Amino acid sequence: MPDTQRSLHLRTWLVYAVMIASTVLVFLWIDSRGAHLEAPDPVGDATFGAGSQAARVDVLTHVLIALVVILVSARLLGNLFRRLHQPPVIGEVIAGIALGPSLLGRIAPEAQAFLLPQSVAPYLGILAQVGVILFMFVVGLELDPRLLRKRTHATVAISHASIIAPFLLGAAFALVLYPRFSSSDVPFTAFALFLGVSMSVTAFPVLARILTDRRLQGTRLGVIALTCAAVDDVTAWCLLAFVIGVTQSQLDSALTTVALTIAYIAFMFVVVRPVLERWISKHDAAGLTPGFLSMIAVGLLLSALATELIGVHALFGAFLLGAMMQHDSRIVQQLRERIEGIVLALFLPAFFAFTGMRTEIGLVHGLDQWLVCGAIVLVASLGKFGGSFATARMTGLGWRDSAAVGILMNTRGLMELIVLNIGLDMKVLSPTLFAMLVIMAVITTIATTPILDRLRIADEPLAEPELAHSK
Amino acid sequence: MPDTQRSLHLRTWLVYAVMIASTVLVFLWIDSRGAHLEAPDPVGDATFGAGSQAARVDVLTHVLIALVVILVSARLLGNLFRRLHQPPVIGEVIAGIALGPSLLGRIAPEAQAFLLPQSVAPYLGILAQVGVILFMFVVGLELDPRLLRKRTHATVAISHASIIAPFLLGAAFALVLYPRFSSSDVPFTAFALFLGVSMSVTAFPVLARILTDRRLQGTRLGVIALTCAAVDDVTAWCLLAFVIGVTQSQLDSALTTVALTIAYIAFMFVVVRPVLERWISKHDAAGLTPGFLSMIAVGLLLSALATELIGVHALFGAFLLGAMMQHDSRIVQQLRERIEGIVLALFLPAFFAFTGMRTEIGLVHGLDQWLVCGAIVLVASLGKFGGSFATARMTGLGWRDSAAVGILMNTRGLMELIVLNIGLDMKVLSPTLFAMLVIMAVITTIATTPILDRLRIADEPLAEPELAHSK
Repeated sequence: MPDTQRSLHLRTWLVYAVMIASTVLVFLWIDSRGAHLEAPDPVGDATFGAGSQAARVDVLTHVLIALVVILVSARLLGNLFRRLHQPPVIGEVIAGIALGPSLLGRIAPEAQAFLLPQSVAPYLGILAQVGVILFMFVVGLELDPRLLRKRTHATVAISHASIIAPFLLGAAFALVLYPRFSSSDVPFTAFALFLGVSMSVTAFPVLARILTDRRLQGTRLGVIALTCAAVDDVTAWCLLAFVIGVTQSQLDSALTTVALTIAYIAFMFVVVRPVLERWISKHDAAGLTPGFLSMIAVGLLLSALATELIGVHALFGAFLLGAMMQHDSRIVQQLRERIEGIVLALFLPAFFAFTGMRTEIGLVHGLDQWLVCGAIVLVASLGKFGGSFATARMTGLGWRDSAAVGILMNTRGLMELIVLNIGLDMKVLSPTLFAMLVIMAVITTIATTPILDRLRIADEPLAEPELAHSK
Repeated sequence: MPDTQRSLHLRTWLVYAVMIASTVLVFLWIDSRGAHLEAPDPVGDATFGAGSQAARVDVLTHVLIALVVILVSARLLGNLFRRLHQPPVIGEVIAGIALGPSLLGRIAPEAQAFLLPQSVAPYLGILAQVGVILFMFVVGLELDPRLLRKRTHATVAISHASIIAPFLLGAAFALVLYPRFSSSDVPFTAFALFLGVSMSVTAFPVLARILTDRRLQGTRLGVIALTCAAVDDVTAWCLLAFVIGVTQSQLDSALTTVALTIAYIAFMFVVVRPVLERWISKHDAAGLTPGFLSMIAVGLLLSALATELIGVHALFGAFLLGAMMQHDSRIVQQLRERIEGIVLALFLPAFFAFTGMRTEIGLVHGLDQWLVCGAIVLVASLGKFGGSFATARMTGLGWRDSAAVGILMNTRGLMELIVLNIGLDMKVLSPTLFAMLVIMAVITTIATTPILDRLRIADEPLAEPELAHSK
């Protein structure tokens, strides 16, 4: 039997060898017949894209190299920061900055020119933008409307104070910054509005992760902080939409932009939301089908495009569509899972690196400017922490909890970077001011965890009763 | 009680109004203080990317418009083709071609210039490339090694014949095509090899979907076709890697490329595969964590980069890494789900549109050239169908089943487009020949379903016994 099998194997291999050999022989014969053939002279390729093929292939290589470098360093620094009990996202942000002109470009310009050449920047930019659009959609999906509905007088007061205080402080600080760091191209109003908004951002996603890490999400403190952050998020993005509208357009057409934005939001609430709700509950049992997913992709792009054309940013439309969908349906859960995974693993690091490439910390020079940078950190923290802390105390929270809420609201993380990039895109922010504000975003986010540790805020059961829902 | 509540509501609203009003007033006061301030003159932005911000914002708008148009038309035509009992992917491919210079660019050049301007092409290109890299990774993940192991003498014979016959026919046909459609830049050997490979591609994913639609995947016919397609896929991609290696490099360095490719494949099998296996079975219970996903993203990019640097295409590395992972583990299932959804919904349509933008059917002109185009379709079908049909008959399948296997193997779909794009990138294919081969790919794929209908191949239970595993 084994003998038969062996001979069978042998025969099979023989047949193979003969087959391959004869194929090669036939090809070689064809090749020899073709060797003397002459083809026409090369002509300039008229077709689309064909002219730049060599360049394009090269671009793919460079984009791949850049993405590998970005992802590896994001992962390394992310893990390092996790070990330091920091949210890993901060490590990823710092990795992005380190790969830019601030560190790598300074100590090893040749390495930077090879790993992240300028020619790669636009491609990285588009990947980053698509990534951030998807990310903001997920943030919208994660926005729990129950959190917004569960608001108490305390949370409403705290969240408003935590926007108004830093907003006004930021706007006032613009009086100092405008003559020094802005340009005469930018009207003061736009500058002040933008600085105000950039001080009042809270990073809902990072905050949520910090709370989960400390198992605080179910506690009274956690619920207050999360609710405030959610309200803040919505308010700050609406404010940003307004500011972009004002900044982008002439003074008279600013009103048109604002009116269109309000009309669009109303349209989303009155038309899109009920349609989506009916649609989702009808299909929820079947789960997320490919057809549904591609409908959502179309809707997402349309919404992003609509807000972009209105004059507020594409991100706003993406966020808004996400917020319109039934937060707790099975379809939305699956949608979130599928988009979030690849966005966090692949596209957000590209965004951080893109941000890092645009952040030139070297532009901040002299004791003088570093003092301004310090003042920015101080004003931002004072507004955010001070506003939330004071209001929390006034609504009856204890000292420690009030301080904790203030510190948590001061977490700016990724959302701030998104806002700052928009500011740089619109040229409201100069590169120098952009660098200072990025530093502010990083410092305020990093500060959160150690201060919470100092305050010994963790998952201790709180004896105090849950806040009453009214009064 | 209602009265008290109303007055409470009233008071809340009053407090709000006062709060907002005073914020606005304070801001207006700040604004008035700032009105007389003078900012420095604008300076040329030295920072990365800042100089081209206006352009970049515009790019985002245009990319969004292009993606919306692409996705909507892909979806419409995909649904139309589904109704015609065709795989929707063919509708998406045709939508892509229609948006290019072949249709939209001809009947409404202004509309095309607005919807899909040339300036958008490179960005669409990079999204398409990242999408196809992810897609090939998923194709690798879906490659069921049991299918390859379950091969019988029949399937091995059929699959080899279905590669060798079209390959040799294609190479022989190069004798006719080379003097007319190639350029003297391209050596005949490269041209003949490439034409051979482009004739021998089978679209495993499309084939799998056709079989599933007809509930054939469990039948003997379905198993034979799927197995052959899987073997074909692996063989054709290895062949393509070899061809690219030969084409890209000088004759002496071609051997280096081939040697490096073999070494890389060996490395993947000997080192990466066991490590992945241990790793996956260790973490499988926990499911797909964000950390794991980002590790996979890094690995995917590294593998794609490695094959790109070796000189074969990045897609090959993506496919290879996918094929190395345990097909039936929970982690891989989740990985597939997450990547596949967004790739199919967002990135593949971009690839089809990108291909369509490069396909200029108008380049094929005159009865003469259309006859050549017809001959290409004929040669491709003859090689693929003829080779599989004859071998299937020889290994003892009935007439009808043999014909069905032949027809199924002639499905080229998406995989062919990927191969053709590589050929155009490498300039082995001229734009005219590219257009002809795209037409061939579309026709052979469209032909599959109606011919199967004609043959009445559907899920009838087959009385004939499952093929014995040897002899």
